[in-house]
Amino acid sequence: MEPVSTTRTFETLVAEMVPAVEAEMRAILQPGSDTVGGAGELYGMMQYHMGWLDAGLQPVSAATGKRIRPVLCLLSCGAAGGDWQQAVPAAAAVELLHNFTLIHDDIQDGSPTRRGRDTVWQIWGVPQAINAGDAMFALAHRALYRLAERGVEPAIVVEAARRFDDTCLVLTEGQYHDMRFESRDEVQVDEYLSMIGGKTAALLALCSELGALIAGAGRETVSHYAAFARDLGLAFQVRDDILGIWGDEAAIGKSAATDVETRKKTLPVLYGLAQSQALRDLYGRKENGDNFVAEVVALLDEAGARDYAQQEAARYSSSALHHLEASGADGENGRALLELANRLLRRDS
Amino acid sequence: MEPVSTTRTFETLVAEMVPAVEAEMRAILQPGSDTVGGAGELYGMMQYHMGWLDAGLQPVSAATGKRIRPVLCLLSCGAAGGDWQQAVPAAAAVELLHNFTLIHDDIQDGSPTRRGRDTVWQIWGVPQAINAGDAMFALAHRALYRLAERGVEPAIVVEAARRFDDTCLVLTEGQYHDMRFESRDEVQVDEYLSMIGGKTAALLALCSELGALIAGAGRETVSHYAAFARDLGLAFQVRDDILGIWGDEAAIGKSAATDVETRKKTLPVLYGLAQSQALRDLYGRKENGDNFVAEVVALLDEAGARDYAQQEAARYSSSALHHLEASGADGENGRALLELANRLLRRDS
Repeated sequence: MEPVSTTRTFETLVAEMVPAVEAEMRAILQPGSDTVGGAGELYGMMQYHMGWLDAGLQPVSAATGKRIRPVLCLLSCGAAGGDWQQAVPAAAAVELLHNFTLIHDDIQDGSPTRRGRDTVWQIWGVPQAINAGDAMFALAHRALYRLAERGVEPAIVVEAARRFDDTCLVLTEGQYHDMRFESRDEVQVDEYLSMIGGKTAALLALCSELGALIAGAGRETVSHYAAFARDLGLAFQVRDDILGIWGDEAAIGKSAATDVETRKKTLPVLYGLAQSQALRDLYGRKENGDNFVAEVVALLDEAGARDYAQQEAARYSSSALHHLEASGADGENGRALLELANRLLRRDS
Repeated sequence: MEPVSTTRTFETLVAEMVPAVEAEMRAILQPGSDTVGGAGELYGMMQYHMGWLDAGLQPVSAATGKRIRPVLCLLSCGAAGGDWQQAVPAAAAVELLHNFTLIHDDIQDGSPTRRGRDTVWQIWGVPQAINAGDAMFALAHRALYRLAERGVEPAIVVEAARRFDDTCLVLTEGQYHDMRFESRDEVQVDEYLSMIGGKTAALLALCSELGALIAGAGRETVSHYAAFARDLGLAFQVRDDILGIWGDEAAIGKSAATDVETRKKTLPVLYGLAQSQALRDLYGRKENGDNFVAEVVALLDEAGARDYAQQEAARYSSSALHHLEASGADGENGRALLELANRLLRRDS
């Protein structure tokens, strides 16, 4: 008989892990004893962004995001045979890294709101928001070095830090491409895949990679964890692109076909543009006509863009699951990783 | 007889060190084999900022700054008994950190030029410039981790990285205050000293501290190196404030009294405002009158602001030299550190 009662489920593990990461991040985002006099407001901006304070810097419980990245890091550590408690500083570091990029992204995109709240630059202005992002980037590094205090060997901390900044650099490369795409007429499918590889997927890969590294896994195993999460990220992003055109509103929380109205250059659209002269003509017009969305969707269907994107998503999903198996991910954490992957790919988590 | 011929002078040491740091930085600021396709322009922006490329991304020899920070780091390593070659990655890291902050500062201040060239945001726009700064911040960290490849122990690399990001955080705190000062009527002298402590001085302290740390110096010695450079930075900044009001044009490369015309809140001005009702009345007026500069300077002299600032500068200088002596800085590198301090304080280097 399997000892079912002692096996923790995905939900149970997440319920243990998320508060541990939250506590770690709160400890890191406090002004220190060496804080230059009265810079509390700078920490307030960061805590506001994290959803812990309101714009008047009073405590509040706002939407914080699902903390998928830290959970992925901690489950990977456990699945690779490590103690996830040791990896908590790394989990906090990746979540702070993610949030630092959001603060700067919002400035770069000119987004006035995120998760229904004013963005940092909208409240405190662009100069202070750039600085708050920089501060959070530094704090993400500080978080990572706390691994040493949990008994992780210095050589592994240095290796983790190296991979952390390798990924930061890939993120800035992805962001460079993303901003360039906005202003370019022709974007190739492979450039697009590079770009999403350099954003969503690279950060997820880092989470899983760091978890396995801290568990003391060997080079090859660490690579499988990284590849698992990278492919999972790519599959997730392509599915998101499909939902942005053909998806149902309830599942994605925004009007289906919004991506079409805004002429967003997603994978199905880039594929369609490469295949269909009629679609290129339609996109060549300055204004969206009355039936723009319906016409675009019909041409995309005709060009086989939906099938293509679904095949790509399936290919990445399958590759992700292959790497997860090859990693030897084990026990309740291994099963929870599979559950996390399935939820992300169904997009109903 | 002293073996004069084998003792290298300050100039000789600098002439060896600067090219070594330059080569290290150039190696770091190259797109890697894992660079996401075609992000070369992102590296181009950073290389442009460093003075290696023109705006068309063609090689050029532009003004690069004096590289005082890396030299301070390497001399401190040598003076503390280390091999300065081992500290080259740290010297490159602090210079890249400094340059990252300049890219973001220029956006925050809206400065269209630096060292007679267009700033990064002026050429590539604010969103790309924010991203180029972020990329350089990540690369500065990558530079630091290269210490491990020069045989520095992992535990010391982690400690160096921790101090590096502690300083990054202090820099963002200083920047927060600096931006707040622009819009505030009342700034206290001690707040101002906190602010400059959090900018110029903190970064210089880091340079010297890292050099000593990499040399394997003990905790107390490392503290003396840090305090030496911090006080040197404070003395330098206060002297700069004095020159901005009473200085001669030839020495500072800008019109004397520019700081008065722009009503910059420097140490003598803050001291004068605290002492003199007449000065507060003058600053209370919206417009600078015809004799504004002469009147302000006269009131500052009357309030003893120049004497006060000179005493402060002398106090910091003296404290810096005390810490240098207490550090036990030795040999040709120790003498070169003293020479560097004297040049900075005379401001004729």
